[in-house]
Amino acid sequence: MAKVYLVGAGPGDPELLTLKAHRLLRGAPVVLHDRLVDERILSLIRGKWVDVGKEEGESGVQEAIHRLLLRYAQAYPFVVRLKGGDPLVFGRGGEEALFLAAHGIGVEVVPGVSSVLATGLPLTHRGLSSGFAVVPGVLAGGAYPDLRPFAQVPTLVVLMGVKRRAWIAQELMRLGRSPEEPSVFVERATSPKERRLKADLREVAEGKVKVASPAVWVIGKVAEVFAEVGSARALAIEEVSP
Amino acid sequence: MAKVYLVGAGPGDPELLTLKAHRLLRGAPVVLHDRLVDERILSLIRGKWVDVGKEEGESGVQEAIHRLLLRYAQAYPFVVRLKGGDPLVFGRGGEEALFLAAHGIGVEVVPGVSSVLATGLPLTHRGLSSGFAVVPGVLAGGAYPDLRPFAQVPTLVVLMGVKRRAWIAQELMRLGRSPEEPSVFVERATSPKERRLKADLREVAEGKVKVASPAVWVIGKVAEVFAEVGSARALAIEEVSP
Repeated sequence: MAKVYLVGAGPGDPELLTLKAHRLLRGAPVVLHDRLVDERILSLIRGKWVDVGKEEGESGVQEAIHRLLLRYAQAYPFVVRLKGGDPLVFGRGGEEALFLAAHGIGVEVVPGVSSVLATGLPLTHRGLSSGFAVVPGVLAGGAYPDLRPFAQVPTLVVLMGVKRRAWIAQELMRLGRSPEEPSVFVERATSPKERRLKADLREVAEGKVKVASPAVWVIGKVAEVFAEVGSARALAIEEVSP
Repeated sequence: MAKVYLVGAGPGDPELLTLKAHRLLRGAPVVLHDRLVDERILSLIRGKWVDVGKEEGESGVQEAIHRLLLRYAQAYPFVVRLKGGDPLVFGRGGEEALFLAAHGIGVEVVPGVSSVLATGLPLTHRGLSSGFAVVPGVLAGGAYPDLRPFAQVPTLVVLMGVKRRAWIAQELMRLGRSPEEPSVFVERATSPKERRLKADLREVAEGKVKVASPAVWVIGKVAEVFAEVGSARALAIEEVSP
């Protein structure tokens, strides 16, 4: 039976690929990949590769990806579907798995290092944060997320939230979070272009913080403490001067 | 300067180590590891290895681990501190990093595939769940977590929650989640002994579900849909017969 591997490419650094992802990329006759996968990782592919990348929140395109996946799965012994980070975190990997299964194609998920966990900031820390939540800034089709169920969680991680950062900060303040609450944006984590930017919610809400996509946004007390650890990566944090 | 790598071992399958973790394990003069790291991964170590494993929620031991880390960091060119899953998810990796930094030891975090993301279940899915939260069943020192900030999040993932599963299910129902809400326990995800067990919150609250530690517990509508996908892994799910 035809088979599709849903593979996570990790956060950017090619050394953060799993051994399994590396093996599959090197051996795959064809790889269908997202726009956000690092070029150094794409250069590992020896077979055919197809860019099926789409912009944040674009819809309609997803159906085209389903059809492409099915066509390649029927034409090759196996196919690698490569996604940035982990294949099941906001990657619509679940939808692709259901579609393929409904068409008799076998699916195997190969988890990857999610960008959520690649910022170097602990999302939980004794006395500061007992747990964390992950939310997207954009839902499928471009809709705005309902942040109410997430607003009280000690550490909040926002993905795909750069464009809407002012709205998200305003909404979280409206839902009860302090304007002084610290946060850190981590652009291109684990890549040579990694850059961290610290700002509290009020600064973000007022549009004072310049950030480039893609960035992971960590909101909560852990952002304060770990901005001050003396590690090489933590030292790269820039303070916003309001 | 002495350096400690805080390295994630991934969820169990040795092929889910990152290339970087694999390189560091093979080259490290000494590895300090947790109890939960898979034996197939430990067999990759060529240097000295030290088991500093502790039981869930045990405290006091953490200070001993700090002292050991410092001693080894001062005696060797570099040290690998190996943790199951990702080193910063409930692994007290943040505390170890702060302690080492305060003693002038360099720290580099090597993220890993968290067991949270290795169940094969998408934690978000269009129309079912816009985001997810991760909480521990046990806090440092054995305390019970406050589940209120997490109770309304569409998908909830509980780690270290097997022993207290009945209490957690009761508490979530008290906080407004439906007794019929589906959930899946995934024991030893990605290992040859992986086993999935589906049950709703009421069944768990009534003590009807037999689960062995360690297991990842996914609560929410995604547990319903993906229990029925025709993939090999999903077919291994057992239904509870109440």
